[in-house]
Amino acid sequence: MGFKKLRRILIGEPLDNEALKEEKYSLKWGLPILSSDAISSVAYAGQEILMILIPAIGVLAYRQLTILSGVIIFLLFLLMLSYRQTIDCYPNGGGAYTVAKENIGTVAGVVAGAALSVDYILTVAVSVSSGVEQITSAFLTLRPYKVPICILLVLLLMLGNLRGVRESSKIFGLPAYAFILGILFMIVMGFFKLGTGYVPPEPTLPAVVQPLTMMLMLRAFSNGCSALTGVEAVSNAVPNFKEPSQRNAKTILLLLAVIIFVLFGGTAALAYFYHVVPGEKAMLILIASEIFGQGFMFYYVTITTFIILIMAANTAYSGFPMLVSVMAKEGFMPRQLSMRGNRLSFDYGILLLSAAAMVLIVIFKAQVGSLIGLYAIGVFISFTLSQSGMFLRWVRRREGHWVHKALINGIGALATVIVVGIIAVTKFNQGAWIVVFLIPLIVLALLKIKRHYTTVRDQLRLEREECATALQKENRYRNRVIVPLESVNRASVRALRYAQTISDNVTVFSVVINKAAEEKNRERYSWLKTDIPIIIKYSPYREIVGPLLEFIRSAEYNCSENDIITVILPQFRVNKLWQRILHNNTRVYIERELLKQKNIVISTMPLQIEAER
Amino acid sequence: MGFKKLRRILIGEPLDNEALKEEKYSLKWGLPILSSDAISSVAYAGQEILMILIPAIGVLAYRQLTILSGVIIFLLFLLMLSYRQTIDCYPNGGGAYTVAKENIGTVAGVVAGAALSVDYILTVAVSVSSGVEQITSAFLTLRPYKVPICILLVLLLMLGNLRGVRESSKIFGLPAYAFILGILFMIVMGFFKLGTGYVPPEPTLPAVVQPLTMMLMLRAFSNGCSALTGVEAVSNAVPNFKEPSQRNAKTILLLLAVIIFVLFGGTAALAYFYHVVPGEKAMLILIASEIFGQGFMFYYVTITTFIILIMAANTAYSGFPMLVSVMAKEGFMPRQLSMRGNRLSFDYGILLLSAAAMVLIVIFKAQVGSLIGLYAIGVFISFTLSQSGMFLRWVRRREGHWVHKALINGIGALATVIVVGIIAVTKFNQGAWIVVFLIPLIVLALLKIKRHYTTVRDQLRLEREECATALQKENRYRNRVIVPLESVNRASVRALRYAQTISDNVTVFSVVINKAAEEKNRERYSWLKTDIPIIIKYSPYREIVGPLLEFIRSAEYNCSENDIITVILPQFRVNKLWQRILHNNTRVYIERELLKQKNIVISTMPLQIEAER
Repeated sequence: MGFKKLRRILIGEPLDNEALKEEKYSLKWGLPILSSDAISSVAYAGQEILMILIPAIGVLAYRQLTILSGVIIFLLFLLMLSYRQTIDCYPNGGGAYTVAKENIGTVAGVVAGAALSVDYILTVAVSVSSGVEQITSAFLTLRPYKVPICILLVLLLMLGNLRGVRESSKIFGLPAYAFILGILFMIVMGFFKLGTGYVPPEPTLPAVVQPLTMMLMLRAFSNGCSALTGVEAVSNAVPNFKEPSQRNAKTILLLLAVIIFVLFGGTAALAYFYHVVPGEKAMLILIASEIFGQGFMFYYVTITTFIILIMAANTAYSGFPMLVSVMAKEGFMPRQLSMRGNRLSFDYGILLLSAAAMVLIVIFKAQVGSLIGLYAIGVFISFTLSQSGMFLRWVRRREGHWVHKALINGIGALATVIVVGIIAVTKFNQGAWIVVFLIPLIVLALLKIKRHYTTVRDQLRLEREECATALQKENRYRNRVIVPLESVNRASVRALRYAQTISDNVTVFSVVINKAAEEKNRERYSWLKTDIPIIIKYSPYREIVGPLLEFIRSAEYNCSENDIITVILPQFRVNKLWQRILHNNTRVYIERELLKQKNIVISTMPLQIEAER
Repeated sequence: MGFKKLRRILIGEPLDNEALKEEKYSLKWGLPILSSDAISSVAYAGQEILMILIPAIGVLAYRQLTILSGVIIFLLFLLMLSYRQTIDCYPNGGGAYTVAKENIGTVAGVVAGAALSVDYILTVAVSVSSGVEQITSAFLTLRPYKVPICILLVLLLMLGNLRGVRESSKIFGLPAYAFILGILFMIVMGFFKLGTGYVPPEPTLPAVVQPLTMMLMLRAFSNGCSALTGVEAVSNAVPNFKEPSQRNAKTILLLLAVIIFVLFGGTAALAYFYHVVPGEKAMLILIASEIFGQGFMFYYVTITTFIILIMAANTAYSGFPMLVSVMAKEGFMPRQLSMRGNRLSFDYGILLLSAAAMVLIVIFKAQVGSLIGLYAIGVFISFTLSQSGMFLRWVRRREGHWVHKALINGIGALATVIVVGIIAVTKFNQGAWIVVFLIPLIVLALLKIKRHYTTVRDQLRLEREECATALQKENRYRNRVIVPLESVNRASVRALRYAQTISDNVTVFSVVINKAAEEKNRERYSWLKTDIPIIIKYSPYREIVGPLLEFIRSAEYNCSENDIITVILPQFRVNKLWQRILHNNTRVYIERELLKQKNIVISTMPLQIEAER
């Protein structure tokens, strides 16, 4: 009871199935929810490029930042065009898993699904860590508590999402717009300040210690690619949109690309002109403090940046549970991941995502620089598989403007596979190896689960001919009942009464510790004036399962192949949580042991116990 | 499977009930097991007296130590005499709980039981912490790892005791004798060394900073009383001894008093003559290093002291599970505490004890000086109740030499109640307040549990007159069966076949997500050529409990007061642990929800799934 009440306060009243239809994204609220992952990368993608380049090539880094940002924005538009085509073809959600599975094959789909799952988990870990990095750049006293703050935030996200979809979109919608406006204002003000003759202070930068090699550029580029995670989320969530869902999704994808272009490009330019050096403090916070000083707008940018990063983590909470529910429904994951909870959210998926993200945060001590090495490779693997799938689809079907469309997806596939290669090679030592090994392991596990479910289904399958005779009289079981009896009381009498109605072959079975107990049981049993036979066995510690099985196998009981033996056990129902641990322990144990026998059915009779006065 | 194998390796093969008789203490092996708690207090009782006195009165402390030791040894002999009388009267174990309950009343018994339970937990925490203190006094590099070492040791003790009684007595027997011989040898050598003219170095002692007040002496005395815990264990465990069990128990109690007298008195005298100053290092280790240097015997004393302290903790592992099992059998604690596990040990009691001790060790950072404040008060409360109970017994019965015997127990009760008062007052601020508040709380909880079990028993009770008519035809239920059907397969056909044998009122109930699924189900169901009606309902997420309950309550089903509805659910049985999480989740959920209805019986049919190729 205590637990249920707590859950109700934290998570809310259970919702009816009917409530699900209302819990869909409008254009206005869907944009912040689904694009925040991509938009929020403004807070770390540019910074992590600089953190690779500045220590190596000093002041030259800023020029390279603008070049790399251009390439990444180009990639973003390519992906946007590709994914708009996917949305057109997949009104029920065109995640990489579905697209790859339908157009390439099962294994490709599972690989895409595994890669995306890993990526969603990293989205939570990276975004929350980065959010906390922003806030601790402004409020330095919080710095030592980065990891616990991150854990707390993940727990809050978990609770919010267990509450359900619609409420989250309201909570998270407004601040996202606040962030976008804030950064836009910062960009405008930044250029205005420069235009009015402001000269930023020149930071002390390290000297150029190594030449600008291709390898260095590619490593910086790999870090920057973390800006592109999250595009998947939109096309995966098409059925989550209000009607017309496909058009809404496509619009949001376009808006997303435009917003990223402005914000990512704009902040990269500001970093270029203001020569900020991220490290102790985050890049965005440094820029804000250059432009606004320590005034209201500085804190405004800090807080809204923090919030959009938490929202980005929340994106994964829309994507991951949906993805695993689809895979679970098809038998690649445990079925319970496909079940909706009280509030119509996929509770198990939400819990799984939270747990995994918290493990990563603890292991990598909430450091964005460390987590970024694992990031992006998963999502680019899924991009590649998804685009390749779409390409094959156009080429196979040859419908409409298929050449034009195949070209777009083909280029997308080619570009993303190159990125996969770049990240795998340049970041292998920085954590990418974990993902490179983890994804095949996950894929193997998923395929093994699928094989198991298939085996079960095959064993259960019944052909039409078998059906016809299955329920005929000669195929029926002989039903025999055993009622374990501890003492003659309301519970055992109730069980006996039930036993009489389901069979005319009932035996009472009692275990006693000594002769005195046997006689007492026999006497009280005789009060019942019934002709149901009672069997009494000795067992010094009242152990019941062993003697019972022995009796069933004995010549005395004479059990045949065709017998099904029903054992009736009472289940006490009490009103309070603390009372629950006082009951049913024996029943659970006996049930578990007896169910190992294939010819024993356990019938559980509930028995309400009234509260004491 | 994996878990079972692991358990088998750690805990051993399950034992038959018959094995229990062999698992009893002989005199030789019972002595070390049951007396080690008292004997091992040599390692901390004297030391904790000094640690109170030395900072206050400097060198004068040693004289007071010998005086206090004398008083404590006197108390020990008083208790020994008292408890020998208890053993005579209680061949089935005369723990304070039993004695107080029988002779004073239920509440007194429960108070004694609660006090003893707390004390057993503290025995584990104090003894293990002290053991680790000894070993880290000799091996200083281990000092920073005191807490983790303690936790590890508790886990080992837990495993050892889950394995069962007899093996532990062998493992723990020999080293106890080694300890006794070692300390004896140390005492002899210590006096020999003094006799041959050795003058110990004079340590730098603090000056006398305060007068020797009564309060100070009593605080030191309270610490010293920790030497007397463990006497209870012997009389509590009478039935654990080989026959003649009472005589064996009494002999062991006598031996125990003699050994304590020699060891505790001897080491106190050595501390007096050698002027050791415990603090950084433990007293016994300091004495050993004075007498033996850093040679073989030094390490011998260290190691055997360590081991006997671990054995002392092990004493609690004999006492606590036995005590709670008795209380659980009588309804004061959850029943599962009275059930023996695979190896005939009381597994739940062992687990509970270990968990509680680990919590204490972590909270008090394994510091004996902090834990000692909580210790002893519990055991002296139970001493008092037990002696008072015995006193009342003699006075009431007036059999044999009752005046003489009542006198012994009366003096025992008086002495111990005075000690309770002393400890409560002098150590209140040092932790005794925790115990003072905890014991009443535990008592209330135990009484509440008892009241609940009594309520349940009363509600189940059936008078003889009621019995006579209970099973007559007119009192029978009408049995109706509902078979939830996901699809037509072997599992559902098996359930239907069973349903037909237990009732002629069977309904098939199916939940579908759309029209197509409904038609498919109807068609395949028709293959079965049965006249059992099928009800199909829509439910967008296959939620089954809600629609099913709605159907049962509907006019369509027309359920009457006298109906019992049996719902048949399949239980998949798979071979591997990882496969288990893939199945039965829905069944468990449905079962739990349906059992909230008092007229629904759940029949669980096992279904073996063969391993895949």
